[in-house]
Amino acid sequence: MATWNNLDTLASYKKLAGLKNHVDIKEAMSGENGATRVAKYSAPMAEGLSFNYAAKQVDDTVLAALAELAEESQLADKFEELYNGAVINTGEKRLVLHHLARRQLGTDVVVDGVNKRDFYVSQQQKAADFANKVHAGEITNAAGEKFTTVVQIGIGGSDLGPRALYIALENWAKENGVAKMEAKFISNVDPDDAAAVLKSTDLAHALFIVVSKSGTTLETLTNEAFVKDALTKAGLNPANHMLAVTSETSPLAKSDDYLEAFFMDDFIGGRYSSSSAVGGVVLSLAFGPEIFARILNGAAEEDKLAANKNILENPDMLDALIGVYERNVQEYPSTAVLPYSQALSRFPAHLQQCDMESNGKSVNRFGEPVNYVTGPTIFGEPGTNGQHSFYQLLHQGTDIVPLQFVGFKNSQIGMDVVIEDSTSQQKLCANVAAQIVAFACGKKDENLNKNFEGGRPSSIIIGEQLTPESLGALLAHFENKIMFQGFLWNVNSFDQEGVQLGKILAKRVLAHDTDGALKSYSDLLNI
Amino acid sequence: MATWNNLDTLASYKKLAGLKNHVDIKEAMSGENGATRVAKYSAPMAEGLSFNYAAKQVDDTVLAALAELAEESQLADKFEELYNGAVINTGEKRLVLHHLARRQLGTDVVVDGVNKRDFYVSQQQKAADFANKVHAGEITNAAGEKFTTVVQIGIGGSDLGPRALYIALENWAKENGVAKMEAKFISNVDPDDAAAVLKSTDLAHALFIVVSKSGTTLETLTNEAFVKDALTKAGLNPANHMLAVTSETSPLAKSDDYLEAFFMDDFIGGRYSSSSAVGGVVLSLAFGPEIFARILNGAAEEDKLAANKNILENPDMLDALIGVYERNVQEYPSTAVLPYSQALSRFPAHLQQCDMESNGKSVNRFGEPVNYVTGPTIFGEPGTNGQHSFYQLLHQGTDIVPLQFVGFKNSQIGMDVVIEDSTSQQKLCANVAAQIVAFACGKKDENLNKNFEGGRPSSIIIGEQLTPESLGALLAHFENKIMFQGFLWNVNSFDQEGVQLGKILAKRVLAHDTDGALKSYSDLLNI
Repeated sequence: MATWNNLDTLASYKKLAGLKNHVDIKEAMSGENGATRVAKYSAPMAEGLSFNYAAKQVDDTVLAALAELAEESQLADKFEELYNGAVINTGEKRLVLHHLARRQLGTDVVVDGVNKRDFYVSQQQKAADFANKVHAGEITNAAGEKFTTVVQIGIGGSDLGPRALYIALENWAKENGVAKMEAKFISNVDPDDAAAVLKSTDLAHALFIVVSKSGTTLETLTNEAFVKDALTKAGLNPANHMLAVTSETSPLAKSDDYLEAFFMDDFIGGRYSSSSAVGGVVLSLAFGPEIFARILNGAAEEDKLAANKNILENPDMLDALIGVYERNVQEYPSTAVLPYSQALSRFPAHLQQCDMESNGKSVNRFGEPVNYVTGPTIFGEPGTNGQHSFYQLLHQGTDIVPLQFVGFKNSQIGMDVVIEDSTSQQKLCANVAAQIVAFACGKKDENLNKNFEGGRPSSIIIGEQLTPESLGALLAHFENKIMFQGFLWNVNSFDQEGVQLGKILAKRVLAHDTDGALKSYSDLLNI
Repeated sequence: MATWNNLDTLASYKKLAGLKNHVDIKEAMSGENGATRVAKYSAPMAEGLSFNYAAKQVDDTVLAALAELAEESQLADKFEELYNGAVINTGEKRLVLHHLARRQLGTDVVVDGVNKRDFYVSQQQKAADFANKVHAGEITNAAGEKFTTVVQIGIGGSDLGPRALYIALENWAKENGVAKMEAKFISNVDPDDAAAVLKSTDLAHALFIVVSKSGTTLETLTNEAFVKDALTKAGLNPANHMLAVTSETSPLAKSDDYLEAFFMDDFIGGRYSSSSAVGGVVLSLAFGPEIFARILNGAAEEDKLAANKNILENPDMLDALIGVYERNVQEYPSTAVLPYSQALSRFPAHLQQCDMESNGKSVNRFGEPVNYVTGPTIFGEPGTNGQHSFYQLLHQGTDIVPLQFVGFKNSQIGMDVVIEDSTSQQKLCANVAAQIVAFACGKKDENLNKNFEGGRPSSIIIGEQLTPESLGALLAHFENKIMFQGFLWNVNSFDQEGVQLGKILAKRVLAHDTDGALKSYSDLLNI
């Protein structure tokens, strides 16, 4: 059994803390030494991706200290316990099994007589069979016509991850002839969200997936009612158009209101649920079950690397360790995720949830306050768009923001033009290469307004193309990075008690059970 | 003439710095005192909006210190100089005239014999006339058919602001019968961005607006060529489908390649250009020129309030002052913008550029380094979505992140359902009210994992409905806030030298003129 200790109690952390500003990245990345670093500081990832950390503030000394930290905090052992079914989510006394939904890792896990691997596989199979029947026209609307659109109704993890993955592969699927149905998403309780989607959707040919583990999420149940109301008004029977993704014990599970129900369980948290039926049903309907399986395979391959004890051969663990060095030793408060891929436009929003909801904690897994900072603020937009937006602050602002770039050699659609001897794809890649060096090395100018200090660390994940497999590997990389950081900070990355108080107070407002400031704000907002 | 001094040289700032943690917001907002604060700490904005700062860490003592700071740093005088045509953009030796594009404020400004007010009005009129003719079918494609779609090709300020405003009013316009044309946007040099838009667009009935002040923006010219190529391949003459928004001296201005050219000038920076032809042409085509004029009117009304010397009657200046107190005295590194309105889904991305590109600087307006932090990291997503995502960190993380909420009493579309005795709109508003109090007051729990520390400051802008006028006022509020913060930090908020180095290095990569790390990254990316 691994032992769980606070970061600041570890001898290896104290050693690491003594290495503050140990590497001058500007000097390290200049001249031929820079080329040596780019060749050396690279770790293969799954599915042809690679994690290059040459422009991070590390050298062999820092890496050795990070390896000691990984060892002392037993990161590999903890991951092994997790995927073999230990109760890692101590707050809610739950197992953490999203890796098992990707099948290839760990022993069988049996809970209350149920083999969870078989359970996840059976739900994937159920989703696959259902999707195949919809695509084949065996499951149709009441008029016997094919469904053409699928609308996911969910919020948080039931929305951000599946939406980011759908957008990531939408164009790829069209190019590769596997785009089966258009997918849309309703998440916000703002009635304009549901209304706008419904007004632009051909209701008679649409399937709606209600996604709520508990079956009690206010926003989702409200939007479900919103959709049912619209279907009824359009003369359609909602039961012919609605699916549920929920836990077997939820009120939605046994309802006759749904054409079919698919199950998840308490051992896969919302923000890790893209690999479960939460992502599986909508993506299998949109692209076909084979594509969803390929995403899972890519994720599973990356998971295997994450089990490696050697940090230099474990890009997920290494990324996590460097991040903790930046956050706790270098004291940088935020991190930007910058994919040079328009298809990844909502991937930063998904990571924002995954990271900030997992590690935005002030107490350790035993409920004791910690004396160090934990999860950073995460934000990002696709490049090159960001270059014409917030990069000014990243280059010349007073705070240093560590950067996580992602880039692919090839586009998804393949349509391109040559302008001034280069394609758009080459321009895109040239820009990300240029930015890494600009951030690291800067450029001296006598006019300080045009001076670039440099010394701003970044890493880049490079791939051939954004495909189902590489997308799965990318997803798993960040999920695993966040998990390892949670281990390092000794927090429980798998609960989210911080969202509860707002829910309770909102209910009081709606029940008009308020006083003081809460009543005043309610009055101002005409509730 | 106003005098420009660094923040840390001001006696009033030193006094303010002595007020660190002066207000315990948890205590101040609890009980009936909270209600008193909500009633008292509110400033009317234009167009029925109000800025409520009860949950900020201020009281009459802090406000008095902020008023002294406003006075000593001559904020009102500097704004007056700006809108009357002083060279406020010292780096580029330019005037700053986006307020003049909204017409109502300041004296006439004449540059090289041109009355700039007349110039902006004339371009608005030109856009209005053009849009009216397109809508009336007087300007058509070669087949004599009406144009139905308008696609803006631009990046940074030519994309984020206009896109955010379009999305903000898209549903409102449909409901109010003023949706004239669908608008789309191409920004990224990633070829998949242009390809995806082109594949989903009926080219024969589309107008494309090329937006580049200099006429030299790499991404935009590349995407223009991309679009022309597609039009030509579709058997269409690009000159019948392309418009330009550019400066009068740019290579695009006199070209015969465009159906029409609309002009901007060097005195309105990209991130402030939504009020110019950059926003005007696309929004006039999408919604009609009257709607664009209503946005400008709303902005102009807010600008009038921004000229007020009394900070309690100047919500833009007050918001700026509180932000500087939070950034420099309270030492909070980032700020979240959280609109409870799905229509404002891309408004945070626009503000991210506007704020971080304006004030992400390390030197003052005289090119000297400053000894204090300047612009914070800005991020945000709409509520209630964010509640199910990164709010966990905001509530229970180790860093305090000041929050800027926005909420409206009424939805735009008006379609709604009653579930458990409340509408979705009421649930939306109940949630934002609840969040403010939850963040400020927290809730004690013996189980520290469920404990809410509170003490997390926020403000809220409340309006009746998101309309062209209130949207304009909202836009101007944040633009003016950022401007006042730039005055306080003594930086030039109107240049962006930090974006140059990346452009230079990217050109070197494309010319294969690289060595060291830059060559290595280029090789890894197959350039």
